[in-house]
Amino acid sequence: MTEPLDHHRMANAIRALAMDAVQKANSGHPGMPMGMADVATVLFTRFMKYDVAEPRWADRDRFILSAGHGSMLLYSVLHLLGSEELPIEQLKAFRQLDSKTPGHPENFLTKGVETTTGPLGQGLAMSVGFALAERMLAAEFGEEIVDHYTYVIAGDGCLMEGVSHEAIDLAGHLRLAKLIVLFDDNGITIDGHTDLSTSVDQVARFQASGWHAERVDGLDPEAVAAAIERARASDRPSMIACKTVIGYGAPTKADSHSAHGSPLGDQEIAGARERLGWAYPPFEIPDDVYAAWRAPQARSVAARQAWQERLAALPAEKRAEFERRMSGALPEGLDAAVVAAKQALAEAKPKVATRKASENALEVLTKVVPELAGGSADLTPSNNTKTKAQKDVVPGDYSGRYIRYGIREFGMSAAMNGITQHGGLIPYGGTFMTFTDYARPAIRLSALMHNRVIYVMTHDSIGLGEDGPTHQPVEHLAALRAMPNLLVMRPADSVETLECWQIALESPHRPSILALSRQNLPAVRTEHVAENLSARGAYVLAGPAEAEVTLFATGSEIEIAIAAKALVEAEGYSARVVSVPSFELFFEQDEAYRASILEGSKVRVAIEAAVGFGWERLIGEDGVFIGMKSFGASAPAEALYKHFGITAEAAADAALTRLKANR
Amino acid sequence: MTEPLDHHRMANAIRALAMDAVQKANSGHPGMPMGMADVATVLFTRFMKYDVAEPRWADRDRFILSAGHGSMLLYSVLHLLGSEELPIEQLKAFRQLDSKTPGHPENFLTKGVETTTGPLGQGLAMSVGFALAERMLAAEFGEEIVDHYTYVIAGDGCLMEGVSHEAIDLAGHLRLAKLIVLFDDNGITIDGHTDLSTSVDQVARFQASGWHAERVDGLDPEAVAAAIERARASDRPSMIACKTVIGYGAPTKADSHSAHGSPLGDQEIAGARERLGWAYPPFEIPDDVYAAWRAPQARSVAARQAWQERLAALPAEKRAEFERRMSGALPEGLDAAVVAAKQALAEAKPKVATRKASENALEVLTKVVPELAGGSADLTPSNNTKTKAQKDVVPGDYSGRYIRYGIREFGMSAAMNGITQHGGLIPYGGTFMTFTDYARPAIRLSALMHNRVIYVMTHDSIGLGEDGPTHQPVEHLAALRAMPNLLVMRPADSVETLECWQIALESPHRPSILALSRQNLPAVRTEHVAENLSARGAYVLAGPAEAEVTLFATGSEIEIAIAAKALVEAEGYSARVVSVPSFELFFEQDEAYRASILEGSKVRVAIEAAVGFGWERLIGEDGVFIGMKSFGASAPAEALYKHFGITAEAAADAALTRLKANR
Repeated sequence: MTEPLDHHRMANAIRALAMDAVQKANSGHPGMPMGMADVATVLFTRFMKYDVAEPRWADRDRFILSAGHGSMLLYSVLHLLGSEELPIEQLKAFRQLDSKTPGHPENFLTKGVETTTGPLGQGLAMSVGFALAERMLAAEFGEEIVDHYTYVIAGDGCLMEGVSHEAIDLAGHLRLAKLIVLFDDNGITIDGHTDLSTSVDQVARFQASGWHAERVDGLDPEAVAAAIERARASDRPSMIACKTVIGYGAPTKADSHSAHGSPLGDQEIAGARERLGWAYPPFEIPDDVYAAWRAPQARSVAARQAWQERLAALPAEKRAEFERRMSGALPEGLDAAVVAAKQALAEAKPKVATRKASENALEVLTKVVPELAGGSADLTPSNNTKTKAQKDVVPGDYSGRYIRYGIREFGMSAAMNGITQHGGLIPYGGTFMTFTDYARPAIRLSALMHNRVIYVMTHDSIGLGEDGPTHQPVEHLAALRAMPNLLVMRPADSVETLECWQIALESPHRPSILALSRQNLPAVRTEHVAENLSARGAYVLAGPAEAEVTLFATGSEIEIAIAAKALVEAEGYSARVVSVPSFELFFEQDEAYRASILEGSKVRVAIEAAVGFGWERLIGEDGVFIGMKSFGASAPAEALYKHFGITAEAAADAALTRLKANR
Repeated sequence: MTEPLDHHRMANAIRALAMDAVQKANSGHPGMPMGMADVATVLFTRFMKYDVAEPRWADRDRFILSAGHGSMLLYSVLHLLGSEELPIEQLKAFRQLDSKTPGHPENFLTKGVETTTGPLGQGLAMSVGFALAERMLAAEFGEEIVDHYTYVIAGDGCLMEGVSHEAIDLAGHLRLAKLIVLFDDNGITIDGHTDLSTSVDQVARFQASGWHAERVDGLDPEAVAAAIERARASDRPSMIACKTVIGYGAPTKADSHSAHGSPLGDQEIAGARERLGWAYPPFEIPDDVYAAWRAPQARSVAARQAWQERLAALPAEKRAEFERRMSGALPEGLDAAVVAAKQALAEAKPKVATRKASENALEVLTKVVPELAGGSADLTPSNNTKTKAQKDVVPGDYSGRYIRYGIREFGMSAAMNGITQHGGLIPYGGTFMTFTDYARPAIRLSALMHNRVIYVMTHDSIGLGEDGPTHQPVEHLAALRAMPNLLVMRPADSVETLECWQIALESPHRPSILALSRQNLPAVRTEHVAENLSARGAYVLAGPAEAEVTLFATGSEIEIAIAAKALVEAEGYSARVVSVPSFELFFEQDEAYRASILEGSKVRVAIEAAVGFGWERLIGEDGVFIGMKSFGASAPAEALYKHFGITAEAAADAALTRLKANR
């Protein structure tokens, strides 16, 4: 155990590095690292099972800095522990281009950063996914292989954000006892004191959700350590409200929002050095402090070595499976299973909703890919996300592979990010397409973090009918297509749905959105092709390669495009239908292929029961768009398609008018 | 007081109408109205101050059906009370095109519906805005003119959604004692029993946020009435958890998720009629039941008449101001104030960030438009949303005009919807542009409900610099431009900022997003023009009407376009800069104007520090887009613009390459 004297020098090293790096960058947040330095020191040197030399060791404790603006706390800690990734030069390059020390922690940039945080509340919400993945893998592979804690530092902002409620309720319900949240209870937000905007009793609030929760003096290392001990002993997730002082040590700015988000200034820093008894120049850490930080690493190294022995002692097959799973590699046999299922579908020609096709796809895929972990934000019977064999994950028994996320689209999506970041499972989760809005901040982090998360978004247009405009997505496809590194796929029938599922699984570095219909759709891929045609993004589904009219469509509107093609042909013109399951995949094709799809026709028409924003990329300024211009309405689907003019007749008429005008 | 016998017949009328309408529509949610029929009967016949003949009377109690899927409860009640809007034919046309009875309540369609609900949690979150507006107007106009309750029915879904936490915490903090939430505690969600996904103690949870909260038997009318009395007497907002049975009366489906969201079926309905002792045919309500529902209206009519006398007794000026405010009409003098301020700005040519320009605009506008009610989601010093004169709204004193919304972007936005729906105030609120994602579900409802809510979204691009990709919007402009009925405006300097503010205020039926820079921008509107040029959406800012190159840009990239223009001209070509403060406004211009902007140039270039999705609408497939293709990065702004190639040189080079190729 570290002595108190050492403790304070160790904690002050964090404070000094945070002050200095923010000052040098002339940008950043010194207040949180200075306030939470004691807590972080206790956590990392007395508790964390974390070998800094092996930052991706599977059974390490996970640390999530939910208050991501305090990134210098994390960088300082990793540096002090001896991370090769973060020598002092990197701390001097804080917030500069190409450094490993960006303003907010980015897991894809910096080894040792478990997840990307900054958008408040999401670190906490992701930690539920980490802690849940840990339990699910422990149930599968045994606690001798998977048995670690997930620690979180969260601030007032994290706990004010709504997603915190979803996270807390879900974690409390699932009794994720190895989740321990350290709340930086400093009473300060950007606007000033927290009493400007909140009066909640956080301890009582967590207790109401089934957590172990208590208050401690966050500047007293022994009190913090004792609280962490109690948290570890609890059979509930734990929240420790650590009373701290933002900017602790700064002579005039401590305990004030002026310590939060900007450099303290040279004079204030000098004053803080004096108060803290820290006489070293900027970025200089004395050897004894380094040594004090690094000595406890021996404990973690020993734990890792013991774990590796246990792993080596596993039966070869189980060990290989664990290693495969943690690597993210897919199992053998996926493609063969998909091709076989496609062949059967091309013959059976089922007329089903694509949400049902997705369920059917899952029946195939979950057998081949055991790491698929499903769920829904309380729309299981609507999203068709549960297979016959999937068992629920329930409090205390985590051996199931289906998660009842509750009415928590954002919490679900953030948890899926956490599950992905943890490794070992591939999460998918469902809600209505219109509620991608609720989940959007987490979808964005999926994309930014390069996470293979699969969003099963059903009821994808006015085709859902009577529930009306609040439930009918119209702008969502466009809004999602605008997001970098996100695959948006809208399949037209059972074959395309299975292909899109395969693409999603085989995309290890980006999330996918599957936009699926509520209503039944005819089979359109009725000739078996082994190739995954949807992977082209857009392809000729019907009609000659060279045609006077090209009708682009997606999902449920393919049926309309096929009918429009017949109407155009009846007037003596040639027409083809291009199915466009994914804009992103299409624009990744080579130029010749793109030209073969985009060019050659006199008239280009696009049909999609959504706004046309972005479709000019495929049909040009002069193309015809048949779709929505407004929000939807409440009525049976058929009436709505007619009401909004999304019909084969409208598409054919528009094409024919253009053709005749150009004659 | 109504006798118990009458009560049950009255409540059963709701149950019967809900069963029958859902059955006839073959779609809808009978379970909630059947479970909450007793609560609704007690509320509407014993407490609500609501004159059904004057559904827009300013001082009526507000009723928010946060569990919007239970719309038949609201339609039944309004019908039973005698609403002219909802004769029995409308209930028979439930969920049909052009009816007044859509699947979820839509305030813009049906008189008597206070707000649009369905996306869960938002009704509750909007109710905070209603209750807050009530207190703010009471502080201004006196309790003899504004003094009413806001009642909410919320379900498990509403209370699981994260936004409920933001709403509860804010309402508890602000001590909105006239807000009373009736929680339909039926223990059932779509997936099954609530114990699949939640274990929270809702009463303890609300108490932790400073609410009066208690449990009652929701099927016992006297118990419900007594609880509402206690709630009205409390000096805190109140939550009454009403233990109910979903689908109460249905013989086999009650207390099960099968009663939630689909028709019960003829047999089940017949069984329910028998159990409930309701012997009437579908859609038939006996006269004594109508009479029992309508008799208590006398109380509300008397209250309204007394109120009208008090209003008439006000000093003429105060009365006129109250009536103007509730009508939504703007005061005289706005345009003159804007033109005068624009003239001063054209002369002063301030080089400021547009967020600062927005603050300066607010200093002008809040003096002329006293109904402006500002706020920020805890980013006041960053969003520049507070004027010098604005005083905070604080618990117990609601006379201020600045709301500390806390770190609650979604809750803030929903509250602003509630404030707008209440009437009498025009809310604006700030956060970072990237966090429009957090607020997006409420922004969508603003647009759908035609609400004049003004979103002040600062830090609108990579130009915010070091905070990095989590904080840098890149896809948000496109995602927002895709949304129907939303004005997205990105001004380039102080004059455009003021113009955009004017447009937002003068748009009574749609919300506006102001996308504002963190970084300083040069003045570009340096010649005074009285006309609001931004209202054109796009206009020639510099250069000849006919030019070989048109450089489109918005906001902070106007500066780059102007520099690019000079580089193009230096090579002997003509160029013009078109400022595009708003896509939506531009595409509302007549064809000749649009052609004057879009056509005529050999090369079209667009410059925007965001993804190009949707820009083809202005520059065609063959235009050049200079902007972002990925997420941003953490570095000083200047370094980022260079790193991502968003420079005058890149724009000019691209234009010159095209020009030379076409020579």
